[in-house]
Amino acid sequence: MKQPSPNTVNLYEVSPRDGLQNEATVLSTEAKLGLIHRLVAAGIRDIEVTSFVRPSWVPQLADAAQVVASLPQAEGVRYWGLVPNQRGLERAIDCGLRHVCTFLSASETHNQKNLNRTQRETLAAQTKVIGDAKAEGLVVRAYISTVFGCPYEGEIDANQTARLALRLREAGADVIVLGDTVGVANPDQVTAVIQTVAAAGIPLDCTALHMHDTRGTAVANVVAGLKAGIRTFDGAIAGVGGCPYAPGAAGNAATEDLINVLEDMGFDTGICLETASAAGAFLATALDRSLPGRMHQVYLAQREANSESCSG
Amino acid sequence: MKQPSPNTVNLYEVSPRDGLQNEATVLSTEAKLGLIHRLVAAGIRDIEVTSFVRPSWVPQLADAAQVVASLPQAEGVRYWGLVPNQRGLERAIDCGLRHVCTFLSASETHNQKNLNRTQRETLAAQTKVIGDAKAEGLVVRAYISTVFGCPYEGEIDANQTARLALRLREAGADVIVLGDTVGVANPDQVTAVIQTVAAAGIPLDCTALHMHDTRGTAVANVVAGLKAGIRTFDGAIAGVGGCPYAPGAAGNAATEDLINVLEDMGFDTGICLETASAAGAFLATALDRSLPGRMHQVYLAQREANSESCSG
Repeated sequence: MKQPSPNTVNLYEVSPRDGLQNEATVLSTEAKLGLIHRLVAAGIRDIEVTSFVRPSWVPQLADAAQVVASLPQAEGVRYWGLVPNQRGLERAIDCGLRHVCTFLSASETHNQKNLNRTQRETLAAQTKVIGDAKAEGLVVRAYISTVFGCPYEGEIDANQTARLALRLREAGADVIVLGDTVGVANPDQVTAVIQTVAAAGIPLDCTALHMHDTRGTAVANVVAGLKAGIRTFDGAIAGVGGCPYAPGAAGNAATEDLINVLEDMGFDTGICLETASAAGAFLATALDRSLPGRMHQVYLAQREANSESCSG
Repeated sequence: MKQPSPNTVNLYEVSPRDGLQNEATVLSTEAKLGLIHRLVAAGIRDIEVTSFVRPSWVPQLADAAQVVASLPQAEGVRYWGLVPNQRGLERAIDCGLRHVCTFLSASETHNQKNLNRTQRETLAAQTKVIGDAKAEGLVVRAYISTVFGCPYEGEIDANQTARLALRLREAGADVIVLGDTVGVANPDQVTAVIQTVAAAGIPLDCTALHMHDTRGTAVANVVAGLKAGIRTFDGAIAGVGGCPYAPGAAGNAATEDLINVLEDMGFDTGICLETASAAGAFLATALDRSLPGRMHQVYLAQREANSESCSG
């Protein structure tokens, strides 16, 4: 296996799952597959394609099995599914997925409100889910959300995150994802949390950052993560994933913005910005709304200018 | 005079000039003064209020004299005017302004297209303008634009920027402003350019950064500037200053986004985020369009939620 260069960065795409789950417009399975086809064509190698939560909870993702059944076969591409529990894991395995994600919250209050269980209960259940997934030979990504701040508890002790990360690693998780669920992290905090988690024994190459651009800090936080040694970053095409009821609200770190800045800084993402931008334009059309990614907007403006000069 | 703490950051506000100059909706003088009043109320101490270019060039700023005549008198607040030439300087002085800005481009081609003169000619003219301004006891801020990239020439040699900066300092400029006119800078480049300019002899506390968020990098670039020792950053409320014909296009670094991240990182801007956000909402209403700042959008969404819960 080819050893990745230290200048290789892996962008993990969450638009079909985290990006869509709050969208009011429910996309057809065909539209989702159209998006995924375009993401693959751009060179994206990790895509979180759906979630196996109870369909009544997230109607947008009720077609999980149909999406997975029709995924484009492409060498080197890994498709991931979010599994909230044992039942979700079984459904993912039944569909044939080989990569799954679990999630819990660094904040006790957020965990209880979001998952209706204490952190301890969630961790116990996830230890079993992760163990079973590993026994089946799956690859497991464990999200820890609200690492950089919680809407109920405010700042979260990085040592608490590190303890959870260790427990998840001991359970068998391959990758720990540090999530800024509400988009409140700042670059110094990102550096400090990564250092704490690494010092606790989680290898940097088993750690990923999942940033939201709610307050305009996603790129700055990714750059801080990069400087601290992280090489895997989550993003969503066109920055989808914000609150769809607030027109300008930013969502996940926009994949195109990350490609642009990382390539500009000399890192290799292996992704074609132009093709990724076309995927973002496809998604905005499918959702019939303006999406917040900055490079997405640059792309749309350039496309408009080109079509004007072509017709003029 | 009180020595500023190393944790004090100065945000220089450009919304009334750089923010408005490309807007299709021409604001009334009263609306501009309404904006400036609100910026002052928020605690902003440096505001670029207008430009003394020929009124036919920028109709939005044709009321320069009227704006300056009615500026709120507030202790410690410095009002700045952009002066393109000797005539502009005379008009600024006639109005009673004590702080002026000059501008030229680090790119020869951009300078010729934008100012219709060679860089050498511009520098010669500006040397005289700056000298005259200093002889009148004014404070002078010298913008160098396209420092981090030019739409015609691509990347610009940092040594060229440093040479121009030195000439402008020798002419008497108090502050050199490194401008990312088209929003193409990346954080490593910001660090490198600042180091080159500082090594050439321009003190860090006489250097400011003027970033645009076109590609989503403004906050990351400001953070890079901060780490490199810069303490003055330009911003425009609500991120105004993008292309008004491209609805989601980002403009200047959004002042609210800078306040949020800098205060979060332990720096003191002296500005009230809430009051600044109210100024941004006022501007969006006056321009009757959606503005791209991220914290601006967070503020609008929260205000909406509050008004719903009040009425519900």
